[in-house]
Amino acid sequence: MKGNNFEILDCTLRDGGLLNNFNFTDTYIREHIKMLSAANVDYIEVGYKTDQAFISNKQINKLKVCNDYEIFELTKGINNLSKLSSMIDYGKYNINQLAPAKESPFKMIRVACYLKDIIKVVEYAETVYKKGYKTAINIMAVSREKKEDLISGLRFIKSKCPFVSVYVVDSYGSLYPSETKQLIDTYRNELGDMQLGIHTHNNQQLAFANTIIAAENNVALLDATVNGMGRGVGNCPIELLIPYLNSKYKLEPVLQLIDNEFEKARKDLSWGYSTKNALTGIFNLHPIDSLEGMTGDLRDIYKAILCKDTSKN
Amino acid sequence: MKGNNFEILDCTLRDGGLLNNFNFTDTYIREHIKMLSAANVDYIEVGYKTDQAFISNKQINKLKVCNDYEIFELTKGINNLSKLSSMIDYGKYNINQLAPAKESPFKMIRVACYLKDIIKVVEYAETVYKKGYKTAINIMAVSREKKEDLISGLRFIKSKCPFVSVYVVDSYGSLYPSETKQLIDTYRNELGDMQLGIHTHNNQQLAFANTIIAAENNVALLDATVNGMGRGVGNCPIELLIPYLNSKYKLEPVLQLIDNEFEKARKDLSWGYSTKNALTGIFNLHPIDSLEGMTGDLRDIYKAILCKDTSKN
Repeated sequence: MKGNNFEILDCTLRDGGLLNNFNFTDTYIREHIKMLSAANVDYIEVGYKTDQAFISNKQINKLKVCNDYEIFELTKGINNLSKLSSMIDYGKYNINQLAPAKESPFKMIRVACYLKDIIKVVEYAETVYKKGYKTAINIMAVSREKKEDLISGLRFIKSKCPFVSVYVVDSYGSLYPSETKQLIDTYRNELGDMQLGIHTHNNQQLAFANTIIAAENNVALLDATVNGMGRGVGNCPIELLIPYLNSKYKLEPVLQLIDNEFEKARKDLSWGYSTKNALTGIFNLHPIDSLEGMTGDLRDIYKAILCKDTSKN
Repeated sequence: MKGNNFEILDCTLRDGGLLNNFNFTDTYIREHIKMLSAANVDYIEVGYKTDQAFISNKQINKLKVCNDYEIFELTKGINNLSKLSSMIDYGKYNINQLAPAKESPFKMIRVACYLKDIIKVVEYAETVYKKGYKTAINIMAVSREKKEDLISGLRFIKSKCPFVSVYVVDSYGSLYPSETKQLIDTYRNELGDMQLGIHTHNNQQLAFANTIIAAENNVALLDATVNGMGRGVGNCPIELLIPYLNSKYKLEPVLQLIDNEFEKARKDLSWGYSTKNALTGIFNLHPIDSLEGMTGDLRDIYKAILCKDTSKN
């Protein structure tokens, strides 16, 4: 695949932060942003904007709240800085607090939500957009939504805020490439020429393949993380995506970051393929909640899953 | 994907044997064959038929030579035994020694070879076939062959032994799904309705995705291994393929095997994704030979690879 129409969004700090409760050192965060900027990655998502009311006092840290001043300080002096992005979990951040983009270190805000909230989310996203941010809506867990509900939601987005980007999200790592293609077709049919994005999870070792199929189908915003670091099994590895796109991106700074930082991180945080997480992907289940209370070995978990209603919608 | 036209070949013991020099205990081998048979897998490939001249005395073991008597003994009394397969590395086994299939524990023989040897291999495969075996030709490393040479080779196979199965092999884990599709199309164009197989490697986390694209394109023989165990990064995980095919296969015995045997094996033998092996896949290089003499970190290896002629043919 060659082309310059793609934009890579590195979300290692944000999705990877879910593995270590965002306990990255300031030194690592700076190094990460420096290297990903040197790799020419378009966007670097550093964490969540979250009201402190939603975080217990002991657990507050920079990437969990994404305070503008602190992020300015953290990224000061980095050459050729990529555009920074922050995610907002809908319902956990009062939008009135959001500064205008021109006063913020962030160029992009992504609003993560569930389909049931889409009417309010669209209004929220419009506010974000009017403050000057590139704005994306990430509807999570769509693999378990009814198609007609999804279509209604997409139509509502298109009618009210055609200026946002919309992400196709495989929250559970449950989609086969053909299903990803069908989902993209649905989004494309409803959203016309609005920009689409893709965010994948690797439960079935299909995160990169599903990102490829998205790129082949004119999905322009491609999420990836260094070494695939991310919640559960992780995401699409950026070191695979960069050579695939064969574009303006540079692999060497990413390799340098892996060399210097990732051997220990992989050992300590142990994301990556596991049969247990493959099962949640296969059965289209939440990667953490679905395993709650399940003890025993894989066979026990498999039987417990089979006893539940696990059919895909 | 649903359908009963597929045949799964489990090659854990054969490709995984390359990780541990085939040092499986008899107890494990029996348990493996028992569980994969219970999973209804069509073929279980247990190792190589090799003349002892090609193995140093100290390293001879059952799965490296696949002596008929020893394999009969190993599999005696297993219920509902799947068909057994053995691989032959062309040039390392005198075909005159091969017993007729009706006297052998094996139902299938796969001849692994390089394209340069195809004329002799076809004659060899014909001999195998005439002895009563289902016979497959696995041409290795085709990702580095010229297309016109590959086409000549395939035409020769079709003209001389249209009764064999022919495997599309991604030896280096270098193929993207679209390239796998193109390769399958080439094989299909030249071989007509001859049975095709697929054998993938997981350097770029695409082994399952490439197996899926093969299944979607009427490739009937699908190789997979338990937990993806295999040379280097490994192969397509059978525990992902079975739910995908959603056919006569049973997942539970495979999970039982993983529960009982694979946690330690994964730790000891450490196959699975690594950035180093991703680089050999990305650059279409032999997973072991290409790294010989390369020391230092990923950046050093990357630079050394870039200095070589690494273009894909």
